[in-house]
Amino acid sequence: MTEQKSPRRRGRPRGASDSRARILAAAVDDFAEKGYDGATVRSIAARAGVDSALVHHYFGTKADLFAEAVGIPLRPDIDVPRILAGSRDGVGERLVRYVLKAFEQPEVRRRGVMLIRTAVGSRLTTPLLAGFLSRELLSRVARSLDTDDADLRAALVASQIAGMLIARYVLRLPALAGASVDELVGRVGPTVQRYLFD
Amino acid sequence: MTEQKSPRRRGRPRGASDSRARILAAAVDDFAEKGYDGATVRSIAARAGVDSALVHHYFGTKADLFAEAVGIPLRPDIDVPRILAGSRDGVGERLVRYVLKAFEQPEVRRRGVMLIRTAVGSRLTTPLLAGFLSRELLSRVARSLDTDDADLRAALVASQIAGMLIARYVLRLPALAGASVDELVGRVGPTVQRYLFD
Repeated sequence: MTEQKSPRRRGRPRGASDSRARILAAAVDDFAEKGYDGATVRSIAARAGVDSALVHHYFGTKADLFAEAVGIPLRPDIDVPRILAGSRDGVGERLVRYVLKAFEQPEVRRRGVMLIRTAVGSRLTTPLLAGFLSRELLSRVARSLDTDDADLRAALVASQIAGMLIARYVLRLPALAGASVDELVGRVGPTVQRYLFD
Repeated sequence: MTEQKSPRRRGRPRGASDSRARILAAAVDDFAEKGYDGATVRSIAARAGVDSALVHHYFGTKADLFAEAVGIPLRPDIDVPRILAGSRDGVGERLVRYVLKAFEQPEVRRRGVMLIRTAVGSRLTTPLLAGFLSRELLSRVARSLDTDDADLRAALVASQIAGMLIARYVLRLPALAGASVDELVGRVGPTVQRYLFD
């Protein structure tokens, strides 16, 4: 634990960095126990023995706090809607490239694989990833599509992206693990594009 | 455990059904410990304290023994090549329908979800599913394609099918869990078709 605030001898609130660490630990426990939808900023604050306002002060929204708790230096809930807002041509390829380039970073891959293993492997933590995906990612993608079947389109995209990550980085099927990012962008990008727009 | 052989009062080897059960238990342990590629009929026979010939006698090949050990009443290593051998039109849709119809059976779904959870969730058992998929399923699909990039095509199909099963039956993303089999066949079938043949 490093100090988060610059040290100030007098007047500095006792245990400011302690509160931050306590909130983060409470968030990890609360998310693991209740899933993404069940945990709230309020329940996390109560568990940490602090006011909700302090949680917002240190971490912002629930999605911010989740990203911090999971420890992945990546914000798909912010980046993906940005990709979708660009020109419609090649949205699929840009999305696949974004995910693969992220997972090619060892630190993202390490934590991402851990998160996938945990979420798929345990009945207890499955709702964590499913809830985050549904609320923060798929619903935003769906909103940007504005069709009757937008939720299904977004979920189909998630199924192909998740399957690609699992086959390449978890199961490590040789042909997929050995393919280049460009090769996979060229093969999987059109699938994502079709699910979104065709 | 039911008797597999017709009972014969005299001359029946003592403990025939015991041997069968012991081989099956040894197979479960050996597959779990060494993965699909690492375990052999020989190593399983040694672990059970019987001759390899007896393993072949009761269970046939390693793939047969694996299907029995995993307990899924489904033989994709036999059924999938059969689907691929049919008319090229609609192979993708037939493949997706085959997988979904299987998983709509409660017993297949229960064991299939358990297998996926175990294989993705644990570093120890991941090679089990990956090995079976690669050796018994993907290599057969690839052989039937007869192109330079057949292995990659087969692995891409596996990634989409696995992702669909995980999103629908494990994560249970609402839009996918709520879609009908026909709806999913219509959406995902063309993806599989494209990965295989385009």
